[in-house]
Amino acid sequence: MRLLIRNASQLVTVSAHGARTKRGAEMRDLGIIEDGALLIDEGKIAWVGRSADAPSFDRSSPDVEVFDAEGRVVMPGFVDPHTHLIFAGSREDEFALRCEGLTYQQIAERGGGILNTVRATRGTDRKKLRSLASHRLDRLLRYGTTTAEIKSGYGLTEEDELKMLQAAHDLSAEHLVTVVSTFLGAHALPPEYADDRTGYIELITSQMIPYIARKGLARFVDVFCDSGYFTREETVRIFESATSNGLGLKLHADELSATGAVEDAARFGAASVDHLEYISKEEIGLLAKSETAAVLLPGVSFFLAQRYAPARELIESGAVVAIASDYNPGSCMSFSMPLMITIACTQMKMTPEEAITAATLNAAAAIGLSGERGSLEVGKWADIIILESSSYRSLPYEFGGNPIAHVVKNGVLLEF
Amino acid sequence: MRLLIRNASQLVTVSAHGARTKRGAEMRDLGIIEDGALLIDEGKIAWVGRSADAPSFDRSSPDVEVFDAEGRVVMPGFVDPHTHLIFAGSREDEFALRCEGLTYQQIAERGGGILNTVRATRGTDRKKLRSLASHRLDRLLRYGTTTAEIKSGYGLTEEDELKMLQAAHDLSAEHLVTVVSTFLGAHALPPEYADDRTGYIELITSQMIPYIARKGLARFVDVFCDSGYFTREETVRIFESATSNGLGLKLHADELSATGAVEDAARFGAASVDHLEYISKEEIGLLAKSETAAVLLPGVSFFLAQRYAPARELIESGAVVAIASDYNPGSCMSFSMPLMITIACTQMKMTPEEAITAATLNAAAAIGLSGERGSLEVGKWADIIILESSSYRSLPYEFGGNPIAHVVKNGVLLEF
Repeated sequence: MRLLIRNASQLVTVSAHGARTKRGAEMRDLGIIEDGALLIDEGKIAWVGRSADAPSFDRSSPDVEVFDAEGRVVMPGFVDPHTHLIFAGSREDEFALRCEGLTYQQIAERGGGILNTVRATRGTDRKKLRSLASHRLDRLLRYGTTTAEIKSGYGLTEEDELKMLQAAHDLSAEHLVTVVSTFLGAHALPPEYADDRTGYIELITSQMIPYIARKGLARFVDVFCDSGYFTREETVRIFESATSNGLGLKLHADELSATGAVEDAARFGAASVDHLEYISKEEIGLLAKSETAAVLLPGVSFFLAQRYAPARELIESGAVVAIASDYNPGSCMSFSMPLMITIACTQMKMTPEEAITAATLNAAAAIGLSGERGSLEVGKWADIIILESSSYRSLPYEFGGNPIAHVVKNGVLLEF
Repeated sequence: MRLLIRNASQLVTVSAHGARTKRGAEMRDLGIIEDGALLIDEGKIAWVGRSADAPSFDRSSPDVEVFDAEGRVVMPGFVDPHTHLIFAGSREDEFALRCEGLTYQQIAERGGGILNTVRATRGTDRKKLRSLASHRLDRLLRYGTTTAEIKSGYGLTEEDELKMLQAAHDLSAEHLVTVVSTFLGAHALPPEYADDRTGYIELITSQMIPYIARKGLARFVDVFCDSGYFTREETVRIFESATSNGLGLKLHADELSATGAVEDAARFGAASVDHLEYISKEEIGLLAKSETAAVLLPGVSFFLAQRYAPARELIESGAVVAIASDYNPGSCMSFSMPLMITIACTQMKMTPEEAITAATLNAAAAIGLSGERGSLEVGKWADIIILESSSYRSLPYEFGGNPIAHVVKNGVLLEF
């Protein structure tokens, strides 16, 4: 079965001409084809060009569907490279406390924060977690996200971390959205190990990581390295275990303070370092020379009304900059990549073009998928969104609604 | 025809017990009835109480429909008391320039800004303007806004201002959303009067206002009083004309600088003063003692990344605080009142309860409708939204999507 999409006002390819990321000024080049068209064959992109040059098909040909984009924008589906979307419970009451002036850290010190969600998630079985997350993925897809990373980290016991990863595994088999799993056992120190940090790191490195790698339950291992969470030394121990077990690396870095851990991530060849609100000039220089993507989380800074990561400095230094939702119940209860693009532009001064590159190709790079997804290039999977609008610049400009008219996933035009 | 809505987890009445506004601590009292129900008769609210106490109907009764809210929140539809949603053209290219670092004022000085939209709107006929705006109102309604104010102000000639007001009049007759019209001839000085400010004020006060009043084309007259726009003296002349012609008053005040014009508005008994990013302590004191509503526009400060109005000081001083979208192509291309509530809570530190009161009852007061709409009280029109969630606190907390499951307008449950 083939699908021809034609009459796109702008076919926004985000093509990197075979390369897997865009940096610096390249991020502003969206590879736009005016009046564009695209042919999909067996789920993958077979041809890209102008509508006038598109292969013509006999109308009676039974195996070709032709879709008229009617002058709308056709572009890659969003890749959301950082979410915590498997969880139970709600933290809307903590949100109300924050409105009254308490900080995220103050709420965590009162027993709220991550451990609040840990309690609820431990008390919920795999089937129910999967069902909750599946409904969330439905909404992501409707708002244009065709690939999402999902982290564990609300279990913090071997049993509960595996339960989360198994739920993610179920979703990757059952849901249309492409799911990439990350093991985040080092999200917070579990209460049971409050007096035995070493014991918990030992559990993660000697027991959980080898098991998860053997069972294929995660592609990446992530660590929350910050004051009050895990140290650089602990991070390095976890990275060593992950690497020797063949898993990729990610890092929550410089969210609350400048820890310098970006250096460790770059040295270990991590796929991404995420957050970076307090990243130092030296660390920016390291990222610019590395393949490690800088995943910025505009929705978190917005939702917590805290400092934004220095997107302009990162882009201008030549780092591979991506954006993600960080969808989670504590610091960003939003899955909307269109809104993340608006926040990136209005608050972080990214241009519309940079933000779109950051939410597609570079986001795919942050989860190791930019060879297969994240741009509209021949040979890649056909993950495509069609906007309501005729101009890609409407994407950050018109905000708070859903700008997506249609979604194509692995070559299939979805019905909503 | 009667409609009984029952099994609301929370029936959020926002009742003011007969009063038309809420101030100070009252704004936190949402008048919630747990497991609530509500009876509508001929479009108006006939009874409000607990589901267990609801009038029972014989199933065979042909004139009663029963709607099961299934444990969701039932609350008043949003009132958006400040929009400019009749316009032609797009300013997404100006938005891209702002992302590059230009300010809103710099873009206006280059011939962009309001006058950009004026050119496009002058070149578009009433029928097309009405059609564009009607599609926008469709979306407002889907996101829970059941009443909206619409301003003129992109015509700036007698003919083009009347064209806008006539389009608004058409919409008020044709569209489900209740529309309230405001004449904003004093939105910007038209280029034709660049050397004759007095002549334009004369045109507004001696010709346009009397005609508009006679034809019933607007309920309010508004002025953009700020540096680079209109002076306090000009504002007072326009207020005098509006008052003597029987029209209500509104004011764009203290957006770019502290002009002191809130004093004029309070003295003339204006329905609202809007923006207030630079309002002074003295002006806050005046508002606290007046009936004039303070309409805050969180989306503008967010979109322009500029200063927010001092919501906490206004609430704590006892002013009647409302929020609006200011939906317009220059400074806020969003119609989403749910997102405005999130921005109000996260950036302006309003509590969820205060923000909901500000978006319903107090917003209705800002356009003179709080005797009829804005809360769920017996005798008011049944403008109702039913959330997806079982807790009203989800409204600011889960952001960037559409939290509205169902809308009831003038007692009719809408199908989308």
